[in-house]
Amino acid sequence: MQKVLKSTRVSRTFRNAILGTTFLAVGVTGMAYASGPAKDEPIKPIVPAKVTNPGKVELGKKLFFDPRLSKSGFISCNSCHNLSMGGSDNLTSSIGDRWQQGPINSPTVLNSSLNFVQFWDGRAKDLQEQAGGPIANPKEMAFSHDLALDVLNSIPEYRAEFAKVYGDKKLDIQLVTDAIAEFEKTLVTPNSRFDQWLKGDSKAITAEELKGYELFKNSGCVACHSGEAVGGGSFQKLGLFEPYKTNNPAIGRADVTKNDAERFFFKVPTLRNVELTYPYFHDGAAKTLEEAVDIMGRLQLGKKFTSEETAQIVAFLKTLTGEQPKLQLPILPPSRNNTPRPKPFD
Amino acid sequence: MQKVLKSTRVSRTFRNAILGTTFLAVGVTGMAYASGPAKDEPIKPIVPAKVTNPGKVELGKKLFFDPRLSKSGFISCNSCHNLSMGGSDNLTSSIGDRWQQGPINSPTVLNSSLNFVQFWDGRAKDLQEQAGGPIANPKEMAFSHDLALDVLNSIPEYRAEFAKVYGDKKLDIQLVTDAIAEFEKTLVTPNSRFDQWLKGDSKAITAEELKGYELFKNSGCVACHSGEAVGGGSFQKLGLFEPYKTNNPAIGRADVTKNDAERFFFKVPTLRNVELTYPYFHDGAAKTLEEAVDIMGRLQLGKKFTSEETAQIVAFLKTLTGEQPKLQLPILPPSRNNTPRPKPFD
Repeated sequence: MQKVLKSTRVSRTFRNAILGTTFLAVGVTGMAYASGPAKDEPIKPIVPAKVTNPGKVELGKKLFFDPRLSKSGFISCNSCHNLSMGGSDNLTSSIGDRWQQGPINSPTVLNSSLNFVQFWDGRAKDLQEQAGGPIANPKEMAFSHDLALDVLNSIPEYRAEFAKVYGDKKLDIQLVTDAIAEFEKTLVTPNSRFDQWLKGDSKAITAEELKGYELFKNSGCVACHSGEAVGGGSFQKLGLFEPYKTNNPAIGRADVTKNDAERFFFKVPTLRNVELTYPYFHDGAAKTLEEAVDIMGRLQLGKKFTSEETAQIVAFLKTLTGEQPKLQLPILPPSRNNTPRPKPFD
Repeated sequence: MQKVLKSTRVSRTFRNAILGTTFLAVGVTGMAYASGPAKDEPIKPIVPAKVTNPGKVELGKKLFFDPRLSKSGFISCNSCHNLSMGGSDNLTSSIGDRWQQGPINSPTVLNSSLNFVQFWDGRAKDLQEQAGGPIANPKEMAFSHDLALDVLNSIPEYRAEFAKVYGDKKLDIQLVTDAIAEFEKTLVTPNSRFDQWLKGDSKAITAEELKGYELFKNSGCVACHSGEAVGGGSFQKLGLFEPYKTNNPAIGRADVTKNDAERFFFKVPTLRNVELTYPYFHDGAAKTLEEAVDIMGRLQLGKKFTSEETAQIVAFLKTLTGEQPKLQLPILPPSRNNTPRPKPFD
């Protein structure tokens, strides 16, 4: 396989042109890829999101982009989970109300529905539970659920949209977070080059990228970074072979369980779109993928990758960048005279 | 006219349904509206933007949404000219780097290409000149043009896109601001209900809205708020009949010309989409349209509108909300290992 790929390395454009033709040629038979059968690997292709309630998703998108869910009127979900930038803010730690420095690196919202729990320490069981957190966190959006509801209730278009989606249910924070979560569930990124390869298109990744994957698999990275999300499925201790050194005070799972044995256990992050979600780790301390791979090798696997190996693994990791959600920027309904006004400087 | 409108007031949906039918019926003859000829009024319909260089517009859109043009990596053009919220931030004054309070209310970017000069005090002659200002303003994006160029130059996709649009010209701040300005020129909002009325569709506005327009015209508002942008065409003194009271230190045009006679002369703002661009005036002191209309009447026209008149004018002003730009959220190319990193907390 590696030999074939090495000799057929072509530009991405050219590869896609070939792929396009192949699609046309075999379309009738129902085979998606000509090159071979789907592969049985510990990483699984992302299944595109099925939208069963488009009205709810659309409402959730508006809420996700609406800074009026923050005290300042300046911070929305999209501020720290920026969908133009891999669903993250690309900062070491986020900026909250009054420019407060957040305690932890903002995880990507992309493919977050595939995580088994939410937040680095898993303190929310699902996206709906997660969504309520930042709104009321005094270091993040610094609002309260009641005030957020006052804002939404004062805006007829929001009231009408909630009524359309949820019938006569009272507009409460559960509906708000439900709609946001339903929108977030659509933010998956299928069809990465690696997924094309998994589905049988041998030409979708290069020989070097494949070497990187083999290394990733054979070195043990895949023990935690597997499945559809290439992570997101377990808590693991950061710093197995060597302790992880950081000034960040977060202790992960133990913060939630108060069980000292779970000190420094964090949710394994997804590696999907990892090319876009720098910097890395819960403290955002690793600026580059090379640094992150090197540290993971040493601390988690007791392994010192050569710089060539690191480069190969990084090349593989970049094949995990999928199709980014194509979103039309929502137009938010205007506040009314009775809408509580933002208080950025009070 | 008013009588006819009063008796035929119908819901907007119903009106649009009628309009749709009419369109179909008369489409062949080339007449856009069945109800009557285009009107000769001091306000002119907005002409939709003609895009001659879509590549430049697309590049400008990316730059407009890219927070890496700020020191913090958190503030983009769209932060204060939010295209989900009428091209403004709906704050009294904007939030800048390290949460600094901006000196003035952020004017809408929508239809800003129709302004005869840019900024409240007209210190920039056009959008290109304007666009460079906030990037390097220590109270806004707090970056420098050189650093912004370092960021862009380190990202191959940006380099390629600049090369595609500008050939072999050196990537400098002029190209950056040119692309942003070209994008901004597309941000016009045609086809408001008032424009439909101007074009001959008598049913596009209600009797009350028409009364409001007649009052707006006959009271003298139209002396300054006219043309395609319903404003944006002159500097005028704020506080003609009574002085304008404010704690905001801006003195408008005199800040630029150092000519004391121009103290408190500000660029007349556009009233297009004014329903969306609250709060009002250079100091953002008027929270509602009613308040703004009342103050304008007293201070600029020596006129005390009754609350009924104010309501009518406000009703008219809301017919100036046009079609908001339909934008696909741009996907920004990722930083590379050599891209200068944001410094939000240094």
